Amino acid sequence: MSGWLRIVGLGPGCDGLITPEAQATVAGATDIVGYIPYVARVPDRPGLVKHASDNRVELDRASHALDLAAEGRQVAVVSSGDPGVFAMAAAVFEAMEGRPDWQGLDVVVVPGISAMFAAAARAGAPLGHDFCAINLSDNLKPWDLIEKRLRLAAEADFAMAFYNPRSASRPEGFRRTLEVLREACGDDRLVIFARAVSTPAEHISTVKLSEATPEMADMRTVVIVGSSRTRRVGPWVYTPRMA
Amino acid sequence: MSGWLRIVGLGPGCDGLITPEAQATVAGATDIVGYIPYVARVPDRPGLVKHASDNRVELDRASHALDLAAEGRQVAVVSSGDPGVFAMAAAVFEAMEGRPDWQGLDVVVVPGISAMFAAAARAGAPLGHDFCAINLSDNLKPWDLIEKRLRLAAEADFAMAFYNPRSASRPEGFRRTLEVLREACGDDRLVIFARAVSTPAEHISTVKLSEATPEMADMRTVVIVGSSRTRRVGPWVYTPRMA
Repeated sequence: MSGWLRIVGLGPGCDGLITPEAQATVAGATDIVGYIPYVARVPDRPGLVKHASDNRVELDRASHALDLAAEGRQVAVVSSGDPGVFAMAAAVFEAMEGRPDWQGLDVVVVPGISAMFAAAARAGAPLGHDFCAINLSDNLKPWDLIEKRLRLAAEADFAMAFYNPRSASRPEGFRRTLEVLREACGDDRLVIFARAVSTPAEHISTVKLSEATPEMADMRTVVIVGSSRTRRVGPWVYTPRMA
Repeated sequence: MSGWLRIVGLGPGCDGLITPEAQATVAGATDIVGYIPYVARVPDRPGLVKHASDNRVELDRASHALDLAAEGRQVAVVSSGDPGVFAMAAAVFEAMEGRPDWQGLDVVVVPGISAMFAAAARAGAPLGHDFCAINLSDNLKPWDLIEKRLRLAAEADFAMAFYNPRSASRPEGFRRTLEVLREACGDDRLVIFARAVSTPAEHISTVKLSEATPEMADMRTVVIVGSSRTRRVGPWVYTPRMA
């Protein structure tokens, strides 16, 4: 059999949100490649080789997966959520640059339920109208660019979803994010903290910007900030369609 | 049994992209409510009542579904893609406003694979870094607001995904959108037209902005415009993670 590479989204955490296509792809692979906790979500079986690696080595991991596929293995690179959203798909295509031999491989991206849409569903429909998604990690881009995007997104009155809001090594960025948003959007804007959605550790809370503190977020949290129209109805938060 | 309402995403079209949770929810419903082609995707079975309605009556449809749930029916409102993205979830919460009796109903939003992420997966990873999603229909918002968002999104250097780019009743908006983008982003910016993703009618094409014409899009097309960093590698289009 010839080699292939599939870049697979496992969804936010629970089995009920893994698509049949993702399930079948993982079941047909000889090798699973990914970040340790995501590889751990794939059940062991005879003959399956798992290659789990630590965070922040995405490009090495992508190259390793492409190498395995080029050798004739059937390789599934697994991501949480959707692989095209701040996850492994971009890293795999980046690793292909300058390697024409890898560009002809049989590669398919298998979408998954993204953390942002799973979080939005739990809260109601806060992303029910125009919105943007911003990765708040400044590992790979300057903080100034993040701040510029926050200000322009507020001016455009987008609802916003933030990935990687805060980590132990970057404690300051999210504090600054909240300051910028309070300046640009005012104290009453609604903010949803959605942690570990669809897992046993799930925790969702909605507060006003004036009540939001940096400690409410960690690396397992997706943060959603409403537009100026976003509001509560009963226990729900939603953004109306005319906005 | 007491009534409930589930707002369910059926994914972009193929069965392999419907989650087990969505599948089980639809299978457990007494009533299916939705736009005609989406209701048609649910198989008939004895006892199942289907309520299919035409486009542009979202609020009436939502009220009808809430009424049925309040009467004790188990109701699934079905959307294509994800129900929280320019779809029925926002309409249901909007219909709840001013109706405290409906706000206490047992309601759950069941996420689905969105058209934008399914489209991105087919093309590679064009939404692999910060991005926004804009509904180009001016049925419910003024065109000036759409144009303002397009210009700010370009200034923020977001990749962009457009829903409802063009319909028979709104032929001009998408032509104007392409003009605004050419002004703001230049001729070489990559544009992906993704029509009917994951169905037998699927068609994906990638062109430069200078080559894009309004006729390339219709109501079944998701349009993705890259950021300044978005590029081709082999047959793929992706946005690098450092952008």
